[in-house]
Amino acid sequence: MTAHRKTNGDTAASFVRRHIGPSARDVTAMLEAVGARSVDALMAETLPASIRQAAPLDLGKPLSETEAIAHMTELARQNQVFTSLIGQGYSGTILPAVIQRNILENPAWYTAYTPYQPEISQGRLEALLNFQTMICDLTGLDVANASLLDEATAAAEAMALAERHSQVKAQAFFVDKDVHPQTLAVMRTRAEPLGWNLIVGDPLTDLDKADVLGALLQYPGSSGALRDLRPAIATLKAKGALAIVAADLLALTLLASPGELGADIAIGSAQRFGVPMGYGGPHAAYMAVRDALKRSLPGRIVGLSVDSRGAPAYRLALQTREQHIRREKATSNICTAQVLLAVIASMYAVYHGPEGLTQIARNVHRRAAVLAAGLRKLGFAPQSDSFFDTLSVDAGARRAEIVARAAAEKINLGVGETNLRIALDETTTPATVEAVWRAFGGNLAYAELDATTREALPEALKRTTAFLTHPVFHAHRSETEMLRYMRKLSDRDLALDRAMIPLGSCTMKLNATTEMMPLTWPEFASLHPFVPREQASGYHALFARLEKWLCDITGYDAISLQPNSGAQGEYAGLLAIRGYHAARGEAHRKICLIPSSAHGTNPASAAMVGMEVVVVACEKNGDVDVNDLRAKAEKHSNDLAAVMITYPSTHGVFEEHIREICDIVHGHGGQVYLDGANLNAQVGLSRPGDYGADVSHLNLHKTFCIPHGGGGPGMGPIGVKAHLAPFLPGHPATNGDAPVGPVSAAPFGSASILTISYIYILMMGGDGLKRATEIAILNANYIAARLDAHFPVLYKNAKGRVAHECIVDPRPLKTTSGVTVDDIAKRLIDYGFHAPTMSFPVPGTLMIEPTESESKAELDRFCDAMIAIRKEIAEVEAGRFKIEASPLRHAPHTVHDIADDAWARAYTRSEGCFPAGTSRTDKYWSPVGRVDNVYGDRNLVCSCPPVSDYAEAAE
Amino acid sequence: MTAHRKTNGDTAASFVRRHIGPSARDVTAMLEAVGARSVDALMAETLPASIRQAAPLDLGKPLSETEAIAHMTELARQNQVFTSLIGQGYSGTILPAVIQRNILENPAWYTAYTPYQPEISQGRLEALLNFQTMICDLTGLDVANASLLDEATAAAEAMALAERHSQVKAQAFFVDKDVHPQTLAVMRTRAEPLGWNLIVGDPLTDLDKADVLGALLQYPGSSGALRDLRPAIATLKAKGALAIVAADLLALTLLASPGELGADIAIGSAQRFGVPMGYGGPHAAYMAVRDALKRSLPGRIVGLSVDSRGAPAYRLALQTREQHIRREKATSNICTAQVLLAVIASMYAVYHGPEGLTQIARNVHRRAAVLAAGLRKLGFAPQSDSFFDTLSVDAGARRAEIVARAAAEKINLGVGETNLRIALDETTTPATVEAVWRAFGGNLAYAELDATTREALPEALKRTTAFLTHPVFHAHRSETEMLRYMRKLSDRDLALDRAMIPLGSCTMKLNATTEMMPLTWPEFASLHPFVPREQASGYHALFARLEKWLCDITGYDAISLQPNSGAQGEYAGLLAIRGYHAARGEAHRKICLIPSSAHGTNPASAAMVGMEVVVVACEKNGDVDVNDLRAKAEKHSNDLAAVMITYPSTHGVFEEHIREICDIVHGHGGQVYLDGANLNAQVGLSRPGDYGADVSHLNLHKTFCIPHGGGGPGMGPIGVKAHLAPFLPGHPATNGDAPVGPVSAAPFGSASILTISYIYILMMGGDGLKRATEIAILNANYIAARLDAHFPVLYKNAKGRVAHECIVDPRPLKTTSGVTVDDIAKRLIDYGFHAPTMSFPVPGTLMIEPTESESKAELDRFCDAMIAIRKEIAEVEAGRFKIEASPLRHAPHTVHDIADDAWARAYTRSEGCFPAGTSRTDKYWSPVGRVDNVYGDRNLVCSCPPVSDYAEAAE
Repeated sequence: MTAHRKTNGDTAASFVRRHIGPSARDVTAMLEAVGARSVDALMAETLPASIRQAAPLDLGKPLSETEAIAHMTELARQNQVFTSLIGQGYSGTILPAVIQRNILENPAWYTAYTPYQPEISQGRLEALLNFQTMICDLTGLDVANASLLDEATAAAEAMALAERHSQVKAQAFFVDKDVHPQTLAVMRTRAEPLGWNLIVGDPLTDLDKADVLGALLQYPGSSGALRDLRPAIATLKAKGALAIVAADLLALTLLASPGELGADIAIGSAQRFGVPMGYGGPHAAYMAVRDALKRSLPGRIVGLSVDSRGAPAYRLALQTREQHIRREKATSNICTAQVLLAVIASMYAVYHGPEGLTQIARNVHRRAAVLAAGLRKLGFAPQSDSFFDTLSVDAGARRAEIVARAAAEKINLGVGETNLRIALDETTTPATVEAVWRAFGGNLAYAELDATTREALPEALKRTTAFLTHPVFHAHRSETEMLRYMRKLSDRDLALDRAMIPLGSCTMKLNATTEMMPLTWPEFASLHPFVPREQASGYHALFARLEKWLCDITGYDAISLQPNSGAQGEYAGLLAIRGYHAARGEAHRKICLIPSSAHGTNPASAAMVGMEVVVVACEKNGDVDVNDLRAKAEKHSNDLAAVMITYPSTHGVFEEHIREICDIVHGHGGQVYLDGANLNAQVGLSRPGDYGADVSHLNLHKTFCIPHGGGGPGMGPIGVKAHLAPFLPGHPATNGDAPVGPVSAAPFGSASILTISYIYILMMGGDGLKRATEIAILNANYIAARLDAHFPVLYKNAKGRVAHECIVDPRPLKTTSGVTVDDIAKRLIDYGFHAPTMSFPVPGTLMIEPTESESKAELDRFCDAMIAIRKEIAEVEAGRFKIEASPLRHAPHTVHDIADDAWARAYTRSEGCFPAGTSRTDKYWSPVGRVDNVYGDRNLVCSCPPVSDYAEAAE
Repeated sequence: MTAHRKTNGDTAASFVRRHIGPSARDVTAMLEAVGARSVDALMAETLPASIRQAAPLDLGKPLSETEAIAHMTELARQNQVFTSLIGQGYSGTILPAVIQRNILENPAWYTAYTPYQPEISQGRLEALLNFQTMICDLTGLDVANASLLDEATAAAEAMALAERHSQVKAQAFFVDKDVHPQTLAVMRTRAEPLGWNLIVGDPLTDLDKADVLGALLQYPGSSGALRDLRPAIATLKAKGALAIVAADLLALTLLASPGELGADIAIGSAQRFGVPMGYGGPHAAYMAVRDALKRSLPGRIVGLSVDSRGAPAYRLALQTREQHIRREKATSNICTAQVLLAVIASMYAVYHGPEGLTQIARNVHRRAAVLAAGLRKLGFAPQSDSFFDTLSVDAGARRAEIVARAAAEKINLGVGETNLRIALDETTTPATVEAVWRAFGGNLAYAELDATTREALPEALKRTTAFLTHPVFHAHRSETEMLRYMRKLSDRDLALDRAMIPLGSCTMKLNATTEMMPLTWPEFASLHPFVPREQASGYHALFARLEKWLCDITGYDAISLQPNSGAQGEYAGLLAIRGYHAARGEAHRKICLIPSSAHGTNPASAAMVGMEVVVVACEKNGDVDVNDLRAKAEKHSNDLAAVMITYPSTHGVFEEHIREICDIVHGHGGQVYLDGANLNAQVGLSRPGDYGADVSHLNLHKTFCIPHGGGGPGMGPIGVKAHLAPFLPGHPATNGDAPVGPVSAAPFGSASILTISYIYILMMGGDGLKRATEIAILNANYIAARLDAHFPVLYKNAKGRVAHECIVDPRPLKTTSGVTVDDIAKRLIDYGFHAPTMSFPVPGTLMIEPTESESKAELDRFCDAMIAIRKEIAEVEAGRFKIEASPLRHAPHTVHDIADDAWARAYTRSEGCFPAGTSRTDKYWSPVGRVDNVYGDRNLVCSCPPVSDYAEAAE
């Protein structure tokens, strides 16, 4: 409840002060350290004058935190929370309060980074392994990933996977006509550029004659119909085609699993396991496959390995599959998961256990069966006699009247082309069922029909196998136990609530509490994505204003909020370029120039839209080799589609030639895709739309404060110049006729977390945002200045400045001491820090991005740690110990190490565990030693191991 | 925002299952272990049949968590959040979101226990030391305590302190006529039984002639008037009387401090430092004194001492002053603080720092000055030309009209007997000021008057001294730094979110998230305690229902929700007894019988109401010696006022003779006060009101789930039989004519946290509450059964059963091994547990109360730890090492210990730090070794020490 929060007019500037780490005095000291006269002078030395934006940002007067909450309360009032029985992949659900407060509202969980450093991520890795175990158990398949973006994109990913593995050579794919419409639409978007033909039909009758590489079947169908898919799957298998089943997880507690039906792949959404609908997201989708397909499974997979002592340790498995390795050969550009949501869904299962989930499913089904009985009585027999929770009825001429009567009861029904759909869920009460009957014109009593109604699950489809048998799903039934389990896991991890996370290109800045609060208000959390637009007026007011602001910030003319990750944004941006060329009769333009320093997602995205990647060389200083670019643009002039460039570069520098690069590409008819990953160096200082870019994605989870959530969710809206605006992604729920189809299941992507970025901009204002950028750049230059003498800074511009991040180069030390970048990264854990980005974009180096939110004190703590590590390396160089015997190689040190009475190392326990300048009392202990990645990939275990494994490993 | 939360009818039982730890299977196993056929059979063996209640509790159908939130949303809607400019000690304030989420909504802070075990409480002890430092700095006095209940009771405590120390023998005390009315009322309640005469007058004119032991002066006055109190204080000093100043903390950032004015004692409220008004509380009051008075300072004081390595360590200082030592000689029964609120207030100061607080004060004063200028223009000149934030004006005949017009603007004004009061605060905006002007009939523009108005602080009263100079008040200006500071402190502590806290008599049960959520909704948080009743209809509906429920649970006829701690409840209960006797012409009844085993608060409370304590002996088995009781009741038959008895006894047993005891006392004209501390053993099974008690206090923070908050807040409502109902505490804001005055500043005590107990009962229902009691008793008997062979259980009833807690007796082991109860308690920290209650009620023993919320797994983990400790003691007995050299005496072990390369102990590091059965990975490390209490009391330091002290101690 947030009614009547009071506001205070004159603390306008206060949030900026809270968001930005360094105080005015710190800034003065830091300027001195970097040898700059003023912040303005530093900016002049950092950014090319040619790209500096002329006018200040025009974002209105910034609000204080209190005013922002009052404003959001007003927006919330403009949303109306009806009971949505729309279904179509989104269900009402109850997020247990203890999980809401201790995960979704707990910075220890939501500010964590992607678990690339497994030693400081064991807590969320365990939660994700629980998620994978839950998915494997419910789907009856062998290996699951740690979640995907949404059901529709998961379906598209599964189709791509099937295409790679099918024995059928045909470039055609079958889609059940009873899939969710948005799933079909996203698959169409995906298939078209790759030349794959989609055949839509009834799997029980139309599969025989179809020459397809695979098929997607929905279980239960989007209409609610529950069909035995075994014959259809058998038909596919007989052809050598792959069977993909999109399945409802709650229904699977009662139904034979896709694996038992014979499916090769299962996909779907875990939203109804406690994750609020949020007007479309974020939620966690899932994908599970048979063992034979596991090495092609897209996205992240958590696996079990061992640490330096041979004890079990979790880590991301099979990272070699990822698009940053496969680049343009990738069939997917997925490089994220919806970690926070997958964690919530897994905790929902941990809290309820198999018997609790089954009971919830039984309750939902019971309500649906009683509803069906009543509808039959009223003359509206459901179209299928077998169903789980969703009914479709032909309401004929009375359709509109019934919908209106339901709306008067504050109920949304699903409105199909000819029928009505009623999807029940965990929150459905007998009163809701009675209200639906009233909408259909009858006054029936639930209790009466309840007594005489039988269930509607076909005997042949009933589940007979156990699931969630692992003890973790049985040990946390009381709130106390649940609370302690979540606390225990979060304590194993290092997140922003304890220390700086200096990840290059990942912009781990403050995720302010005020920005996070409205997210869990029912007016934002409880809206189904397909409610009538007037019920979401608050959301749409927010979207409109956010789009306007983002246009002002980037210099673009139009924004699409739909892409729900950075990679999705790239994909949508390239689809827009592709659509633009095609509309001009230049569909043959398929060459995409990409500098060799680009993030692997770039070539992967280009491949997904059917473009051909041509790599452009980089100069020794990290800049794009303009001559090579010019030569290649000329060579491919007729077929040039685009260049993909990151700015400031992935090397952390504002290249001087950016305008020239854009001009060259435009001169040959190409479009400029500017990767927005590094927008945090530009906001308020320069605008991509001004200096030549045509389209960019904006990582709202980097620059605009959406927390990383331990590895997701993100949001990747795109901005485009006017000529590309017609080619922004459409959506069947809003503009189905758009030339480019949807890239995400929901029209506005993960709408609920847009509130975070919105509030951030609302409270910062234009001056505040500009100040943030300046301080981000100052902070990076300060680190560069402090570290340069110890670890050379690899790339600077002509005036010796870096942008908002810097790459330091320990490679020469490998020769002199044997130290690896891994050693330094893991040693930083002993100092209480998350490592910087390792080996990207330059192997063997570290990329550091401090962001504006880190104070000088924290920057100094980090620099001190780095310098102390350099001294430790010097000790190796000086021969005190060999690298193998050094604290560097043994890092991170654990309690297991320090407890060893037979300590026989070349350094003391204190030197190992409490290196220079660290606090003993408040030390973060990594729960495991250095994790062995090779072992884990050779011995792949991706679901919860039997408890005996741990017992054996325990001391 | 909580609109339209949906409900699900058939999960009615679900919360009970979440609240209670053991599963059905666990219960079966535990019954077997204790040798009971069934839960019913165990209850029959535990409680005397004579007291079992006949009818089941009648509390209505329990709600699910979702339904409860929906219900609370409806109640919240019935409260109206106006802008309250009422003042009178309560102000609007802005709780920074980062503090709200990470302290007030974080179980790591709110589920912690009182910091009696300093080693596992260093985090909150530091926060409290910050609070004390802030109070000392702002008041200009030497020593502050860690907070008191509210400003009014703090004033009464200060008067009692003055009475002890004044050189004036007169039993008269002067009270400024410009104190808050509720302060005066509470002081009257306190003074009357002790025979102290209160003289109310103007300190600037009436003090000369008054023969008083001391005086309380308000600064600024309740009317807003800002007077130079120096002459009045000088007058008092000249007499040898003590000067107490009730001061507003925010005003003190701009004003000369009470210490500078010459005051001996300062008291007041820290509410406006970020603590929501909550319709009366909870907030933290403060008290600071000159050095000479420090050993009489009531309440808890945090001090600095050293640990076993000589490093600085915080702990509660001067515990010897407490009422449990002084008993009937105590002048105060205070045994708590408002820790959670004091922590919030201190964090508010840490976040804003001196310059931020000063700026807030300047803003508020500015608004007040402009408001005054406008009112003057409109013909309503404020009564005082000097003020900080509050104005009083004589509105004459237009008073009612102005109040009504303000109400139409959703503004509450303060309505005095003849004048109107307008108190501004941190949340006041120019728009609010303009609305007030409109209420007074003028249409003025804030900006216009702002330009021409000067401030109204008299030059002579302006602050010239620095405050909050300690670095902690300067290092956390960014939200990121603030977040990390709070996280760091909370990580140092062990609370219920990590492990069982098996404290005898303290009932550390689940504080469910759903119970905690509505507390921070504005409709509950933002109400001033003196708003017109119709604005608090939701609160009053809740009070009425809660009172009815508590009557049903206890068998009493009426409840007062006013007492805001257990001790206040005792005091109010005894006042009721006193009032009853007096009303019957038996004011001479002043003898209060108290068993020797009673908690020290009992005799202290009796002393406070002018009763004379007669101690009743206990039998060897811990029961009250009925013969001694009978003899003493007979002896004092004419003067017998009451008996104070705890049931089940402080020994953890249901005594068979409780009815007989009540009958004896009643037979001699006395009343039975039954201490409700152990009500968790009775709810649903027996009712004090049925078996003879006349009055009890109910510790809502024990039995009814209000979290302990690290040592407060609590709530201690009292229940009485009908004949005592007229003597429940009155209050000037509700029923000023009641025969007994108020005991707390607010009419409904700490109203906002009553929501917690209300929701608990709402979700448990009668059956659920009864089940909770049964399982609490089963859990205690299970522990008794498991531990008895290792540490004998001291007291059981005739059938060998304990109630909801048990006392285990390690005293014989002291002879055989030298082990002390301290050794065991501190060694439990190494096992990851908070110690049980030490040496109460029997010195040298441990009292264990598991509550119903702990699962069998956690009970087993605890019992395993105790049994492992017994084995370690056996090793001492067997001569493996002397007790001085044992891991028991060295406990708790810290990282400093394990890091010692020169480890030269008789046991291994692992044996010391990771004893049998504990998890290495998830180990809780005590940040300090065993704390030296004697050192700390000899070298008393109660505010933040200079940083150099830490530096010296650091390794």
